[in-house]
Amino acid sequence: MVAHGMSPMPVADELVPCSDGAGVVQEVGPGVDRVAVGDRVVATFNPAHQNGPFEPYMASHALGELRDGVLSEHVVLDQMALVKLPDALSFEQAACLPCVGVTAWNALFESGPLMPGQTVVATGTGNVSLVAMALAKAAGARVGVTSSSDAKLDRAKALGADFGVNYRTEPKWEQSVREATGGRGADVVLENAGPPSVAASIRAAGNGGRVVQIGWKGLEGPPIQVTELALGGVSLVSVMVGSRAMLERLLAAVSVNQIEVPIQDTFKFNEAPLAFQTVESGAFGKVVITHD
Amino acid sequence: MVAHGMSPMPVADELVPCSDGAGVVQEVGPGVDRVAVGDRVVATFNPAHQNGPFEPYMASHALGELRDGVLSEHVVLDQMALVKLPDALSFEQAACLPCVGVTAWNALFESGPLMPGQTVVATGTGNVSLVAMALAKAAGARVGVTSSSDAKLDRAKALGADFGVNYRTEPKWEQSVREATGGRGADVVLENAGPPSVAASIRAAGNGGRVVQIGWKGLEGPPIQVTELALGGVSLVSVMVGSRAMLERLLAAVSVNQIEVPIQDTFKFNEAPLAFQTVESGAFGKVVITHD
Amino acid sequence: MVAHGMSPMPVADELVPCSDGAGVVQEVGPGVDRVAVGDRVVATFNPAHQNGPFEPYMASHALGELRDGVLSEHVVLDQMALVKLPDALSFEQAACLPCVGVTAWNALFESGPLMPGQTVVATGTGNVSLVAMALAKAAGARVGVTSSSDAKLDRAKALGADFGVNYRTEPKWEQSVREATGGRGADVVLENAGPPSVAASIRAAGNGGRVVQIGWKGLEGPPIQVTELALGGVSLVSVMVGSRAMLERLLAAVSVNQIEVPIQDTFKFNEAPLAFQTVESGAFGKVVITHD
Amino acid sequence: MVAHGMSPMPVADELVPCSDGAGVVQEVGPGVDRVAVGDRVVATFNPAHQNGPFEPYMASHALGELRDGVLSEHVVLDQMALVKLPDALSFEQAACLPCVGVTAWNALFESGPLMPGQTVVATGTGNVSLVAMALAKAAGARVGVTSSSDAKLDRAKALGADFGVNYRTEPKWEQSVREATGGRGADVVLENAGPPSVAASIRAAGNGGRVVQIGWKGLEGPPIQVTELALGGVSLVSVMVGSRAMLERLLAAVSVNQIEVPIQDTFKFNEAPLAFQTVESGAFGKVVITHD
Repeated sequence: MVAHGMSPMPVADELVPCSDGAGVVQEVGPGVDRVAVGDRVVATFNPAHQNGPFEPYMASHALGELRDGVLSEHVVLDQMALVKLPDALSFEQAACLPCVGVTAWNALFESGPLMPGQTVVATGTGNVSLVAMALAKAAGARVGVTSSSDAKLDRAKALGADFGVNYRTEPKWEQSVREATGGRGADVVLENAGPPSVAASIRAAGNGGRVVQIGWKGLEGPPIQVTELALGGVSLVSVMVGSRAMLERLLAAVSVNQIEVPIQDTFKFNEAPLAFQTVESGAFGKVVITHD
Repeated sequence: MVAHGMSPMPVADELVPCSDGAGVVQEVGPGVDRVAVGDRVVATFNPAHQNGPFEPYMASHALGELRDGVLSEHVVLDQMALVKLPDALSFEQAACLPCVGVTAWNALFESGPLMPGQTVVATGTGNVSLVAMALAKAAGARVGVTSSSDAKLDRAKALGADFGVNYRTEPKWEQSVREATGGRGADVVLENAGPPSVAASIRAAGNGGRVVQIGWKGLEGPPIQVTELALGGVSLVSVMVGSRAMLERLLAAVSVNQIEVPIQDTFKFNEAPLAFQTVESGAFGKVVITHD
Repeated sequence: MVAHGMSPMPVADELVPCSDGAGVVQEVGPGVDRVAVGDRVVATFNPAHQNGPFEPYMASHALGELRDGVLSEHVVLDQMALVKLPDALSFEQAACLPCVGVTAWNALFESGPLMPGQTVVATGTGNVSLVAMALAKAAGARVGVTSSSDAKLDRAKALGADFGVNYRTEPKWEQSVREATGGRGADVVLENAGPPSVAASIRAAGNGGRVVQIGWKGLEGPPIQVTELALGGVSLVSVMVGSRAMLERLLAAVSVNQIEVPIQDTFKFNEAPLAFQTVESGAFGKVVITHD
Repeated sequence: MVAHGMSPMPVADELVPCSDGAGVVQEVGPGVDRVAVGDRVVATFNPAHQNGPFEPYMASHALGELRDGVLSEHVVLDQMALVKLPDALSFEQAACLPCVGVTAWNALFESGPLMPGQTVVATGTGNVSLVAMALAKAAGARVGVTSSSDAKLDRAKALGADFGVNYRTEPKWEQSVREATGGRGADVVLENAGPPSVAASIRAAGNGGRVVQIGWKGLEGPPIQVTELALGGVSLVSVMVGSRAMLERLLAAVSVNQIEVPIQDTFKFNEAPLAFQTVESGAFGKVVITHD
């Protein structure tokens, strides 16, 4: 979205792209007391978003939008923009987490509660859905996923999804979700498929459930009937990635539960254009660029 | 809505109407220990909804929908369906609270927090809006109200509203709300005007704010762009009246803050048809039916 | 506690004991629409506690305290006091859940959040601790347990505990907890060991953590220094079993995650006295009484 | 406490004292976009605590403890450490708010909810109690206050307290609170009197209520019986002043509700020692130091 100027957020004209990166601290300035040279760290997506809710002034601080991102050999960041990595977490895995992982985390655990035994449905098999699936399973939830491709549903099930619904062959996919939940509907629906899908997501959610808007795939769609929200007892919320404190909690969860983000392909620094093409052609899993 | 068969909830064919009533306990059965003969009480709208969130099975228990309401000289109710009145609260005032008052209370204080200094906007000057205005003022909030009538806005201001917006003369009323809040938008918007108004309500709400859907005025309206929710950092929730525990808290608030619900007119029991006509012709304030 | 008159709650003089039971619906009265003859069900501990927070009036409704419990061949209960069992859940397992399971559930997931990757410490290896351990593991948390017996710690680890601390050999067990959590302290401490342990539990909890008081083992203990709560950023809360709605959520969690409560021994109805003696002699796991 | 080395927090040896101050922006550095020269502003107590919960690393950032405070003609602060003043708020009033006001705000509105009609009890007539009284009244609550002095109780009532209890003449003051609340107990008790008072505060709180520990008056006191918390359904929490976001919300509340902090006396900059002596001799209300 950033490369093609399709981001819903303002983006600088000339920009070092990529919002997620992990690496080693090479140097520290005076007064730095939270990280030391040699520490393995990951950068937060938005250094201004430390804790608590998103505030509008923070928008301009995100990496890879109005400020340079991390597709560099070296970056200069405030120590509060860094979180130390658990020993067992690779740079490649860590670099998958600041945007996609924190968005999934925020949607599942911070925009409301998620309790074991509840049902989460992720719309689509994008990376937020894949990470959310893994996190929700680690949290003891049942997980359903939707896709227009049976092959992708099979891959999602291989990664742990309890049930899948093909919204092309079952256009009333929300009814399949209700059947899969004994009529009650899902407790959390990660709405990742864009406005055309939201009305169905609301009907897929059960009483007391919430639809969490996390996708940006275009702006137009069929009307949402708000009375469906009311009659269904459903809330509609949204998340904007999340804070440094959430990234810390996510890293603990990933570490304790040995969660692995599916990575489709890894490219070298000088192959970056190829990495972007791979994303564009519709990857299943993250695409990572590494340094030697 | 019930009399005209326009309620979004199922309604019995033959029905004693009216969902809200207050009176005196005349008799008690065995094991009754929470009320005594002579107690002044008000009935909850939904005897099954005691505490905690609404659950779907409760829907069929509401008074005046599938079960007989309270437009009677005597009604038989479980003791848990009754709440004792503070001494200073009249039957007329108490009878205004179970639906309209609890809905306003739930929207303001239980669907999320409301803190002093925050801004509440109520759309329309219906009774939920009028009670919400009084409650929000008692809670130290700023209150704005919208209407298509300058006369009604003046009456709302006389009742305490800090600002009013005529959505007929200012069709972009949400911008007036943003101006009245220094650009930040409202913290809580009580969406009482029905689907055509929701999209504007979302734009009237500020970052971290919530739009609470409380109205049932028809089902159709322009599309809501969910990305506006996300970009605005706004949640969309709804309330279904509320619980007996909320009615208790509301009564305490009304009592401590000497809140008075505006009553347009009071009719005798045998004038009930006239009372219904008054409501239908667009009352400003509640319409009450009394017994001798 | 009930049999020996040591319960902190008032108990009837003549009483059918036992607060937890599961079985089959044999007959239903008029108007019963949530259960049918033949349904496999479990009874809630407190039929008055349906949803939302505990209210004082409910206290007298608990089964096995002022009202007869379930050590009977037949019991008469309101349909709202029953929850249907998932197919795979045995009566024996279900009968372990209403008190101990709901208490653990309430402490972990409803007295505040529990997120994957967080650390839970259960003091002692009583049944609430054992069920809490299983639930917390299912929710992706790390779990520590304390005991005065290395043998019991080994059994707890075999059931999934990540670390154990012997508070007899390590009287400053809270420091062991802090070491096991990289200095941060636990996110949730289930305080099950009684007043003498609370002060240490507070020091075992990390900033933002909570100590949940769930035990009743005597009333006396060393002073709690409230400034330790403040300096530690710790909250001290308590739970009183929990609601029917919590039991429903617990059953879903048990079912989805195939959680099994450790049962030490099972007795026949006419061996009930032996069952009580077994509990008294310090069981590890639940003791169950069955009908033919 | 800071001047006498009695603070529970570490304090630098040589220190510009005073944690609260308001003034005019004289100069701004590059990149400053939230304040401009000439803006009237108040400083947050802890520039590192921007939003969300307190984190331990923030402790060393507070003004007037390990870092210089604001008893200066000029101070250099990050723009995020400043909040703009509403036009009607004087520097003197604003300077009363960062510690005492935010502490009261946090305790009343952020450590849990406070709804209109609920009862707040503040122990003692220190400044946190006096500001909390005003805020709670603005939020529609009933307010009680305790003191050992009838004269101070009278002054508190003149400032709006609904009831007062002299804990010297009524040592079981918690029973007077229960009587004043119809037997239910308080919803929020601001525990400002130190450990000796906490046990009574717990008994003064009603089911579902919370005791908020906000005072630091010594560390020793009689044991708290945690089973009283459990039997009473009470939580014990604490607050550490609060965040910049809370200060913003507090300023809005003060402005909308025209809250005035009682100021006992105002001194000039060169009379600072006299100001400290006044505080020490037991002021009723804040003591302010002004510049010409």
